[in-house]
Amino acid sequence: MNIRIYNVRILTMEAGKGIFRGEVWVKGDTIVYAGPFVPDAEETWDQEIDGQENLLMPGFKNAHTHSAMTFLRSHADDMKLDEWLHTRVFPAEAQLTGEDLYWLNKLAIMEYLTSGVTSVFDMYFNKPVVERVAVETGFRTVICESINNFGGTLEEVEADYKRYSQDPDKLISYQLGFHAEYTTSKELMEGLASLSKKYKIPVYVHCSETKKEVEECRSRTGMTPITYMDSLGMFAHRGGLFHGVHLDEADFGIVKERGLYIITNPASNLKLASGIAPVKRYLDMEIPVAIGTDGPASNNCLDMFREMFLVTGLQKVICDDPEAVPAMEVLKMATVVGAHAMGLPECDTIAEGKKADMILIDLQQPNMQPIQNIEKNLVYSGSKQNVKMTMVGGKVLYQDGNYYLGSSKEEIFAKANESARRILG
Amino acid sequence: MNIRIYNVRILTMEAGKGIFRGEVWVKGDTIVYAGPFVPDAEETWDQEIDGQENLLMPGFKNAHTHSAMTFLRSHADDMKLDEWLHTRVFPAEAQLTGEDLYWLNKLAIMEYLTSGVTSVFDMYFNKPVVERVAVETGFRTVICESINNFGGTLEEVEADYKRYSQDPDKLISYQLGFHAEYTTSKELMEGLASLSKKYKIPVYVHCSETKKEVEECRSRTGMTPITYMDSLGMFAHRGGLFHGVHLDEADFGIVKERGLYIITNPASNLKLASGIAPVKRYLDMEIPVAIGTDGPASNNCLDMFREMFLVTGLQKVICDDPEAVPAMEVLKMATVVGAHAMGLPECDTIAEGKKADMILIDLQQPNMQPIQNIEKNLVYSGSKQNVKMTMVGGKVLYQDGNYYLGSSKEEIFAKANESARRILG
Repeated sequence: MNIRIYNVRILTMEAGKGIFRGEVWVKGDTIVYAGPFVPDAEETWDQEIDGQENLLMPGFKNAHTHSAMTFLRSHADDMKLDEWLHTRVFPAEAQLTGEDLYWLNKLAIMEYLTSGVTSVFDMYFNKPVVERVAVETGFRTVICESINNFGGTLEEVEADYKRYSQDPDKLISYQLGFHAEYTTSKELMEGLASLSKKYKIPVYVHCSETKKEVEECRSRTGMTPITYMDSLGMFAHRGGLFHGVHLDEADFGIVKERGLYIITNPASNLKLASGIAPVKRYLDMEIPVAIGTDGPASNNCLDMFREMFLVTGLQKVICDDPEAVPAMEVLKMATVVGAHAMGLPECDTIAEGKKADMILIDLQQPNMQPIQNIEKNLVYSGSKQNVKMTMVGGKVLYQDGNYYLGSSKEEIFAKANESARRILG
Repeated sequence: MNIRIYNVRILTMEAGKGIFRGEVWVKGDTIVYAGPFVPDAEETWDQEIDGQENLLMPGFKNAHTHSAMTFLRSHADDMKLDEWLHTRVFPAEAQLTGEDLYWLNKLAIMEYLTSGVTSVFDMYFNKPVVERVAVETGFRTVICESINNFGGTLEEVEADYKRYSQDPDKLISYQLGFHAEYTTSKELMEGLASLSKKYKIPVYVHCSETKKEVEECRSRTGMTPITYMDSLGMFAHRGGLFHGVHLDEADFGIVKERGLYIITNPASNLKLASGIAPVKRYLDMEIPVAIGTDGPASNNCLDMFREMFLVTGLQKVICDDPEAVPAMEVLKMATVVGAHAMGLPECDTIAEGKKADMILIDLQQPNMQPIQNIEKNLVYSGSKQNVKMTMVGGKVLYQDGNYYLGSSKEEIFAKANESARRILG
């Protein structure tokens, strides 16, 4: 498909480019032109989209989620984390079939699209199903390995790495990872560190999400989770930490020195009473921070607008500084830094040669008016209501409330409800 | 107009009623039936609305806002409060005409409707314009008196009280109030306390929003703002405090003893780095708490879903307790308590004899699926995307993205942009 999107304001997210009026051309899954209006173009188009002076920008990168946990949304809230995990989440997850996961994943993708998310860094079970859904729907998915003491072997991990790192279109890709220090044996972690070194690849892990986690690791190992994992050689080729809420001084040094990404999940951290990540401190140290929703069981929605407001609002209040983490910084985290953290540098901006992962933001909604500073409007005032179109790899997957995913909305809802009812009663 | 809304799930917000399936009948501006399906009804209807199994509930009450500040949205963010007020807000406000306020108010009302807000407690300039817009659009507005050293006399206040408390339909009503202790002389406050006693009416005021405000009042008067105002006899007939972020022990006692409402504005308090209000403490003391967005200049949006998530999320994290302020409590604050705080007890629930201020929540959106616990879905996962219809006083003002306000969306946007450009350049 050759697509021309014209009559748009363009926020490329390239440094210093600002917002300009123009048009974008897409061939296959790639952007081939992004610039001012071309008066005498001789191209022919399969589709032309009139942007109606709305805003075209790179899609949001949801850099930490557990997509198929949609079935647990609002099943168990207002509960302590331990009780929630052991009495609600684990017993329910044990009953999930591949068929369940297929529909629950599709449900999550619908919600991502309504929130302008064009790719996710997804950590959950059953990679073949995740791959099938990504390919069938056209939704870009980076699988994060989640091996731990309760599932997976190093041989499987190595095989999965090889299998899911092959796709030249990168609709599906893979990053090495594991669930967490507290669920993974030293031997397994050493094995993962070896794989990281063998293939020169980064490692991603849930880390320092709660005080309890840090304290328990200290009493077991004498070290914080970050120091302990680093002592095992885990981050020789960089990587990333999901959450990163509770760090000591030495931890900050390791994160900086190893070039780790932090993926912050503020809504989940509030809802589970985990804490508020020191995002401003990270940014002051030039540690790259990306943003994730975490899963729908703990958030409970998959809404990058809510996360963006929280990322800056929470820092302003905990740092007693209304200037902390300005809007443009948040937009970079939600797009460019997210793409880099997930190993998708080809999806970071709107520019020639980049993947066509873009969203059209409806400025003709009252929360975007008057039009004074669009970037600030997006972060401080934006909502799902403003997502007019979501395109992944050159294909429109969502537009004006309609989904183009190969299954109807009604079917996806019905199947997801069936799964939830069967498992949760 | 006689309207029947059928095939809906109904959350009446009456204590213990839960959610049931049924129908609601409206005659004029009043609900005349809310209950199960009536098989052999002999009524005739001007309009029948098929709710498609979605959720009908009382509209949200935005219990603190400055509607016409829409023109300042995203004009000056990421700034210190003082600098923001003195270099940006005050000079701009000085240039506002009645015509500006008319359109800026309409813009705010559009946004309220998209967020399911059916009435606001609005504190701003130019009451005749506020009244005109409320009556023309049919949007229920409670004017909060905002007298202070820079504008208004006690004679005008008394006249306004009489004038705006007359409407039997309560589309427009009035509550006594003033801007803040730090902008109002002792003499003026004493005069307001006398008016409160003369008419036996409550008083509403911005109070203890920032640490600085409390400290400066202490150094001027030797008392906190709450203690000082109480010493002037301000709260003999109850009233309410907007914000209520920084209180000492004695303050809590006064709030409880005087039966004051707290109106919390969490997004604005984050964005201006003011702090996090002790909402759980208030609730534990059985102090009623309502929710407001504050104005669009400091928030920057008028979105009760964002506020609802923040009200509970922030308490969970600062109290280190994921059980703090459960979802149903938040829904009560945003509906029933808000209505009572604003002097609109006839708008609090869906029940016979109550005003028909109701919203239809679209459950056929991915963020509401699967349907397990609708109340929790609303608070933890809901967004403007879910507002399918907003009805005020028996009139549909917003439905499926369309506004019924007497002016077109395009005209309101154009006029609001003109005002912003003329004033802000």
